[in-house]
Amino acid sequence: MSEDNKEPEITYNEAGLVPAIIQDHEGGRVLMMGWMNSEALTRTRETGRVWFWSRSRQEFWRKGDTSGHRQYVRGIEYDCDADTLLIQVEQIGAACHTGSRSCFDNRTLEAVTDRDESNQ
Amino acid sequence: MSEDNKEPEITYNEAGLVPAIIQDHEGGRVLMMGWMNSEALTRTRETGRVWFWSRSRQEFWRKGDTSGHRQYVRGIEYDCDADTLLIQVEQIGAACHTGSRSCFDNRTLEAVTDRDESNQ
Repeated sequence: MSEDNKEPEITYNEAGLVPAIIQDHEGGRVLMMGWMNSEALTRTRETGRVWFWSRSRQEFWRKGDTSGHRQYVRGIEYDCDADTLLIQVEQIGAACHTGSRSCFDNRTLEAVTDRDESNQ
Repeated sequence: MSEDNKEPEITYNEAGLVPAIIQDHEGGRVLMMGWMNSEALTRTRETGRVWFWSRSRQEFWRKGDTSGHRQYVRGIEYDCDADTLLIQVEQIGAACHTGSRSCFDNRTLEAVTDRDESNQ
């Protein structure tokens, strides 16, 4: 990566982290959300494999190193406030440590989903 | 919503907030990420319109009340740690205050995307 590109500064929170939404580049399923610090984002961009910062263990982790369930970067986007990342990946196997493809699989909250005239 | 359902407790961060990823229920584009407190989530579930908590203004806001760009709930999921929400919506108009459909539109970071043998 050149040092003189016009990319924005990413805004990190008070803990030095930015949330990274991980999305399957095929089909668009959201697989998980993780947290990156600046170094994890740099490693992700420069290697094409997704790195996170573990808040609980306070260490870097590269997705798949233990499980084999690697994430290969297909694209990285940031939002209008540059404080959230959206990363499209090729996901090998399950993204979730429970063995589910997505961390959101089979976990729903009941909600009103009827759009009606009283609901404008 | 009944009081005796078996839904999990959602885990809020130290500020009492949970991130909510908002996804277009048609096509799967991730539109934005916002933050909810417990009351915003309850309002969202009970009304079928998406409510957030504004960290900068320290107030509730219902998406679309100013812009007309309302979000109608089509489904709510939570992740394996119950600390992130994924909400499928019918999005009216632009989700982003800039006028873009998605807050992530036209904002990409350069990254390595070649999966090769040295990148396993």
